[in-house]
Amino acid sequence: MFITPIFFLRRPADDIAPMATSEDSLRRALAEKQSTIDATGNSIRQLKSSGASKSEIDDAVKALNALKLEKTSIETQLKASVSGDANGSVMSRDAFRQAVVNTLERRLFYIPSFKIYRGVAGLYDYGPPGCAVKSNVLAFWRQHFVLEEDMLEVDCPCVTPEVVLKASGHVDKFTDLMVKDEKTGTCYRADHLLKDHCKDKLEKDLFMSADKAAEFKHILAVLDDLSAEELGAKIKEYGIAAPDTKNPLSDPYPFNLMFQTSIGPSGVIPGYMRPETAQGIFVNFKDLYYYNGNKLPFAAAQIGQAFRNEISPRQGLLRVREFTLAEIEHFVDPDDKSHPKYSEVEKLEFLMFPRDLQMSGQSAKRLCLGEAVSKGIVNNQTLAYFIGRVYLFLTRLGIDEERLRFRQHLPNEMAHYAADCWDAEIESSYGWIECVGIADRSAYDLRAHTDKSGVALVAQEKFAEPKEVEKLVITPIKKELGLAFKGNQKMVVEALEAMSEKEAMDMKYVLETKGEVEFEVCTLEKTVTITKKMVTISKEKKKEHQRVFTPSVIEPSFGIGRIIYCLYEHSFYMRPSKAGDEQLNVFRFPPLVAPIKCTVFPLVQNPQYEQVAKNISRSLTAAGISNKKDITGTSIGKRYARTDELGVPFAVTVDSTSSVTIRERDSKDQIRVSIDEVAAVVKEVSEGRATWADILKKYPAHTSLSVKEVLLSCKSRN
Amino acid sequence: MFITPIFFLRRPADDIAPMATSEDSLRRALAEKQSTIDATGNSIRQLKSSGASKSEIDDAVKALNALKLEKTSIETQLKASVSGDANGSVMSRDAFRQAVVNTLERRLFYIPSFKIYRGVAGLYDYGPPGCAVKSNVLAFWRQHFVLEEDMLEVDCPCVTPEVVLKASGHVDKFTDLMVKDEKTGTCYRADHLLKDHCKDKLEKDLFMSADKAAEFKHILAVLDDLSAEELGAKIKEYGIAAPDTKNPLSDPYPFNLMFQTSIGPSGVIPGYMRPETAQGIFVNFKDLYYYNGNKLPFAAAQIGQAFRNEISPRQGLLRVREFTLAEIEHFVDPDDKSHPKYSEVEKLEFLMFPRDLQMSGQSAKRLCLGEAVSKGIVNNQTLAYFIGRVYLFLTRLGIDEERLRFRQHLPNEMAHYAADCWDAEIESSYGWIECVGIADRSAYDLRAHTDKSGVALVAQEKFAEPKEVEKLVITPIKKELGLAFKGNQKMVVEALEAMSEKEAMDMKYVLETKGEVEFEVCTLEKTVTITKKMVTISKEKKKEHQRVFTPSVIEPSFGIGRIIYCLYEHSFYMRPSKAGDEQLNVFRFPPLVAPIKCTVFPLVQNPQYEQVAKNISRSLTAAGISNKKDITGTSIGKRYARTDELGVPFAVTVDSTSSVTIRERDSKDQIRVSIDEVAAVVKEVSEGRATWADILKKYPAHTSLSVKEVLLSCKSRN
Repeated sequence: MFITPIFFLRRPADDIAPMATSEDSLRRALAEKQSTIDATGNSIRQLKSSGASKSEIDDAVKALNALKLEKTSIETQLKASVSGDANGSVMSRDAFRQAVVNTLERRLFYIPSFKIYRGVAGLYDYGPPGCAVKSNVLAFWRQHFVLEEDMLEVDCPCVTPEVVLKASGHVDKFTDLMVKDEKTGTCYRADHLLKDHCKDKLEKDLFMSADKAAEFKHILAVLDDLSAEELGAKIKEYGIAAPDTKNPLSDPYPFNLMFQTSIGPSGVIPGYMRPETAQGIFVNFKDLYYYNGNKLPFAAAQIGQAFRNEISPRQGLLRVREFTLAEIEHFVDPDDKSHPKYSEVEKLEFLMFPRDLQMSGQSAKRLCLGEAVSKGIVNNQTLAYFIGRVYLFLTRLGIDEERLRFRQHLPNEMAHYAADCWDAEIESSYGWIECVGIADRSAYDLRAHTDKSGVALVAQEKFAEPKEVEKLVITPIKKELGLAFKGNQKMVVEALEAMSEKEAMDMKYVLETKGEVEFEVCTLEKTVTITKKMVTISKEKKKEHQRVFTPSVIEPSFGIGRIIYCLYEHSFYMRPSKAGDEQLNVFRFPPLVAPIKCTVFPLVQNPQYEQVAKNISRSLTAAGISNKKDITGTSIGKRYARTDELGVPFAVTVDSTSSVTIRERDSKDQIRVSIDEVAAVVKEVSEGRATWADILKKYPAHTSLSVKEVLLSCKSRN
Repeated sequence: MFITPIFFLRRPADDIAPMATSEDSLRRALAEKQSTIDATGNSIRQLKSSGASKSEIDDAVKALNALKLEKTSIETQLKASVSGDANGSVMSRDAFRQAVVNTLERRLFYIPSFKIYRGVAGLYDYGPPGCAVKSNVLAFWRQHFVLEEDMLEVDCPCVTPEVVLKASGHVDKFTDLMVKDEKTGTCYRADHLLKDHCKDKLEKDLFMSADKAAEFKHILAVLDDLSAEELGAKIKEYGIAAPDTKNPLSDPYPFNLMFQTSIGPSGVIPGYMRPETAQGIFVNFKDLYYYNGNKLPFAAAQIGQAFRNEISPRQGLLRVREFTLAEIEHFVDPDDKSHPKYSEVEKLEFLMFPRDLQMSGQSAKRLCLGEAVSKGIVNNQTLAYFIGRVYLFLTRLGIDEERLRFRQHLPNEMAHYAADCWDAEIESSYGWIECVGIADRSAYDLRAHTDKSGVALVAQEKFAEPKEVEKLVITPIKKELGLAFKGNQKMVVEALEAMSEKEAMDMKYVLETKGEVEFEVCTLEKTVTITKKMVTISKEKKKEHQRVFTPSVIEPSFGIGRIIYCLYEHSFYMRPSKAGDEQLNVFRFPPLVAPIKCTVFPLVQNPQYEQVAKNISRSLTAAGISNKKDITGTSIGKRYARTDELGVPFAVTVDSTSSVTIRERDSKDQIRVSIDEVAAVVKEVSEGRATWADILKKYPAHTSLSVKEVLLSCKSRN
């Protein structure tokens, strides 16, 4: 293997921990070094003024210079620690990202949309290789989730009427806090400005006190939880102004992130471009449940575009205004969240970052999924099953499992209704990025749509035989109540009927023992006296034939663009050219996601070879293997380099009319295969039915002839 | 074969022809019959008043009744002819459509979106089988076009800034004419109201004069070409009122069909949801041309959502507010529209409907594509190549080739810049539906974006050796012009330089013969006198190394939802159940598009069989073959019927632990295959590498045992 991988050393998982130990101690060491330097400087001045010997002074100056060198070294380490480029890395995070992004844009994996019109922030086009990668990722998602898990896939429109998103809470709560430049009206995300301010201070002011540094670190950690008022106060306190103009900023206020539109010509149906695909599934629950034979559990899935009108998008493909989501809604009985295929994932081990490790400032740890469930770290089997399946999905795509962790939401991050929530986070040059959210949302969404639409989105469990249940029966005696409360009777009756089981049984006890009870009627805003004659309270046994309940939903939600971007970073490396005079870019995509599986080129320009290349390309296409011919006269090395930069795993080179070579991208190993077999071999290894190692065993290795030798052998044959 | 197909007899291709001959003659026959009846009625009255004999009167009445019967028969024929339900059809168009749509909605192929909130017109969800069909159609589209034709696929956002759609003409011209109910404000499409009025009159007023009928027919034919004024005048003339309220209507006015929104928080970037995917390709032309090695021709392709805010959507899946488009932009040298793979399609024969056949009131004819090109009916090879590829695409999906025609646009239907345009139209119960448009749009789109963006979207042809060309050189002599025209000099110079070659050469001739010439300067709004001294005009020979030009674009554009809906209608049929007591629905989807390829069921409920079924289902899933188990105790016949209604082509029935049967949907043939082979056989025939006929030859036919026999054989083995 000739790969020279580029590593930026992993930052400890310190995004949440109050302050990383190394950074903290470096700050302290720097401050100490500075005071030693100051002291040494003072003593030199004293030596000079006290007329000490030259050699004495020279020694002191030497010592001072040594101290200054040490200080510089600490400064460098501290800078690197703050910016995430720890020492020992071959390349800084920023330089690495620039190398990846340059390659991606130059080879049209993606480009800013509408570039000839100077683009629109947060909108990107996928060019041919990017489009192929995306379509491969989605095809594998369908195979891995929809097909293997027997999910019900649906496809709903992006245009959504307001009533649906009102019910889901998006109209009222899908907002970010925004501040405006008070003079120009330019808008900024309030939390971004505060974040930039804190990061900037931490990076540039290396001599700030440990307390101050801890304060900034704390703000970064709790940024997502700050209210508009708290954000506004901090912005004022730090004197943060508009970045472009230095003008004063408005107070933060919420901005709804949905793109708004209007459906139909009359302008009376307000609508939005959906901010997620999930709602399309929830509103169809009844039909899907019926389609599944009225049985739980089942999962529905949807792949589609979603839209968020970000205030000021940045971070390239990671924060965009339109993106592809792939979402699963797994509906399950809240009383039974076991999963029939749980045993297939329980032995998996990978990096997990449970709540308690985060709170105590520790790092993510390799845990066994089954143990995490049995210890109660992961709430239930179904949630764990999906965590396991997501792990398998991402690593098979080519995500480096060392840079993948499952982080549990802290209590303050979760919605009040959520039972548990884990994010698959992938480490990129931007830090740890949330790429898949896996949440147990309990019955929240179905209940919200039931309430708003009046259509009961519920499931039934038919009992094998009727069950006897005790039911509370409250019977207000209207005649007595009418006499006692006249016009207020109705309110009292309603209040009595609305009592909980406990309240009613307490009242029953008091009535039976004391004959009357004081009872607060909220709607009357006063307390009334209820006597024994006014109400009967009892428990009756009833036979029930079924149980009607709102299912819980477990929702794995995949940001496809984010996964793909992280995959690009994890797949990218550079290696020296054969002549050693330049660094060549390579994407080590597994065949599953590679945009093109195979290139075909004649070693030299020659009609016979070109015909062979054409035939091979055709047979590959017919077998459904995407491939590209390159019949330019460019040197074979350059053609390999071009194809490596697109991440093409295999290259067929035609150097005879009977057999050809197949070269593997990362090892650069070559084998010799007869022309009749080549399509079948490439298909087998591209579709993952054989590994390159399997193939290497079956076919003779090829040691490449020079172009000159081939030209000679051509001539001798013709 | 036990298929009882349902046909509605094909309407002659008369949508455009001024009046169908049969309908015309029926109208005339009906009018004649009526006058004969009137005459006979009169003569009976005369007989009566003249005291004729009873037998004489009886005979006359008999004759009158016979005439009335004949009239009824003509009426029936005429009604059927007008509504498209010609006699002889087993089922009327409407009844057939209702049967298809009921099945589609009941089995969740599609359903109205947001149903629990009473839906939104023109928005539909695809449920699990519909979603699978769509994803199969798109996968085949990618294979057939992108992969086999080496196209560059891109993926651009739906949200589009106004500037792009201003350049493309959509902001100004993408409109429909709308009228408003003057009291309630309800909006209607003006052409729909006029169309409904004409159709209604034609259907209900069977005794209208041939002239009047011709007038209505003519309006239906030219409906798309009527201006707002013409439409308004007709609506007034016919006294058309609002359909729901009978209130008066406003004059027609244009309504833009794009969904409008705003990009970013400041509200200053107006945007729209794209009405087509093509613009995303045009604005990327420069990058794509570079990606293709600066070579023409090449094609780019895009699959994605498009949006049209229809005024009043109807016709189910055929006219919707959000839909999936698959578009190809093939860029080609305008001087060379030959196609390298043209020979692969030129021998194809299918229904074509060229301009002259339409204008002369004839029907579509089977033509050979190559002949259509050589006779100049189809403009060029590239356009023809795509027509041929579209024909292959649609028929392989399962579109009935007898109900598929390629209709050429009439001159008045085409944009002024278009060179030629053909629509693939598919006949459905709604008539002939445009499903694919194949247009040679010349250089229009690239020029429009070049003009608006200032970025030259052009191609270069490098000459093998420099070419000598004559170039016009106009040199205004500024000194002389300055003396003569003072402050107006600049305007005169610009006008001189802007002369065309002909104008300049004419001026040169006059100057040389007469010494001076009158010259109109538009910007001065007057004519000035130019003398010989003021300008020199010459032709100089220059060497050019390349030719720079704007490529032509040939655009095949596929409405995926429309194709799928027509496919549903073409695939649907009914056949009697075994007992003959009910009609069962079947979709005869080819395996390529079938939502599920195979069902697996144990013949009887039995743990061993269920285990075998489970294993087979797993091996099918691993092989990428979508399948469904049905282990309910329902009778085998009912389970087959359920699966036929989803269009599942193959059913594996487990009736032993060593071998199983495979049943084909349409023939109901069954073969016996060993358990080890079953996944491979189903895969082969599902992926089209073998036909069912091939399989039938290789494996023994199975004659089904009754369930009783199987139960007995089970018992004896256990």
